[in-house]
Amino acid sequence: MKISIGPRTLVYPTPVFVIGTYDKAGKPNAMTAAWGGICCSNPPCVAVSLRRTRYSFNNIVKRQAFTVNITPEKFVRESDYFGMASGRSQDKFAATGLTPVKSDLVDAPYIKEFPLALECSLLQTVEIGVHIQFIGEVLDIKADEELLDDEGVPDIAKVKPVLFAPEMQAYYGVGSRLGKAFSIGKSIES
Amino acid sequence: MKISIGPRTLVYPTPVFVIGTYDKAGKPNAMTAAWGGICCSNPPCVAVSLRRTRYSFNNIVKRQAFTVNITPEKFVRESDYFGMASGRSQDKFAATGLTPVKSDLVDAPYIKEFPLALECSLLQTVEIGVHIQFIGEVLDIKADEELLDDEGVPDIAKVKPVLFAPEMQAYYGVGSRLGKAFSIGKSIES
Repeated sequence: MKISIGPRTLVYPTPVFVIGTYDKAGKPNAMTAAWGGICCSNPPCVAVSLRRTRYSFNNIVKRQAFTVNITPEKFVRESDYFGMASGRSQDKFAATGLTPVKSDLVDAPYIKEFPLALECSLLQTVEIGVHIQFIGEVLDIKADEELLDDEGVPDIAKVKPVLFAPEMQAYYGVGSRLGKAFSIGKSIES
Repeated sequence: MKISIGPRTLVYPTPVFVIGTYDKAGKPNAMTAAWGGICCSNPPCVAVSLRRTRYSFNNIVKRQAFTVNITPEKFVRESDYFGMASGRSQDKFAATGLTPVKSDLVDAPYIKEFPLALECSLLQTVEIGVHIQFIGEVLDIKADEELLDDEGVPDIAKVKPVLFAPEMQAYYGVGSRLGKAFSIGKSIES
């Protein structure tokens, strides 16, 4: 039976994006954001929501750019740290030993050791409430070559992305393959 | 080594939301959307992007409401179908045998057999490109009581939500718990 559990920010799955930016002095910063996702196929766009108070907020506004780095299981601890520490007082790349790499196409750094990085140019800023949503156009994706499948697509089973369970405040991995999209439901078509 | 794989709509994980709406005649419809996610903590909001051509598009505009239903592993086939068929020509609830339930707080149906449903009131409409983003304020969540943990939160391990791997066009389940959020990264704090 269904019961009401009230208004909450709860969907499953939620991503563990790490947003890469440069501050005004050119110092690279990394911040974890779970409020986001792809929001348009053409132009290809990704949305991420940040509070105004985050150090990365003004970095994105000023540089008009950010990267979205996908957290792999191996670096879940680092991404948890990226979500708690502030780039105002800490050099998060130095603290974690991870390596910022200047993007080819936008004025933002991606994380060398993370498997997938989306280079995004700021397209729109949407005022919602305590969070402001940045919509970035994906100009390119950088991926670790050894994680690609035979079609040249990053294999989720090799990328091993981390998921976030918001109200449980816990991280999870990806499980088994369940089926082929745009295919397994065809038998239901009437 | 990282290589460029071009601009794509690829992040991991991506959700398998089923959007519940009523059409002008009051017929319930269900449509799958993978482009979306939580976008604000206060007011609690969720974003979903739809093409203008989808039957659900005008349903949302006219009723100013929708539900977001989380696909469980058990119904991955039904959600795949909900993403391919159109409510213009098919009664998708009849075809799947699933049950639409009128939401308590908004003018949209949720799916009785799905574990979690967010009742959303349309707050903003954002024009992006081929997709239009609807931002809904989450007025309530309905959850199956037997899936709640000791704190009253839906347990992701019991909900068994489905993930979508966009370019691979495949569905996956959730794997193992990796750690506690806002906790495991603390040892890195300098």
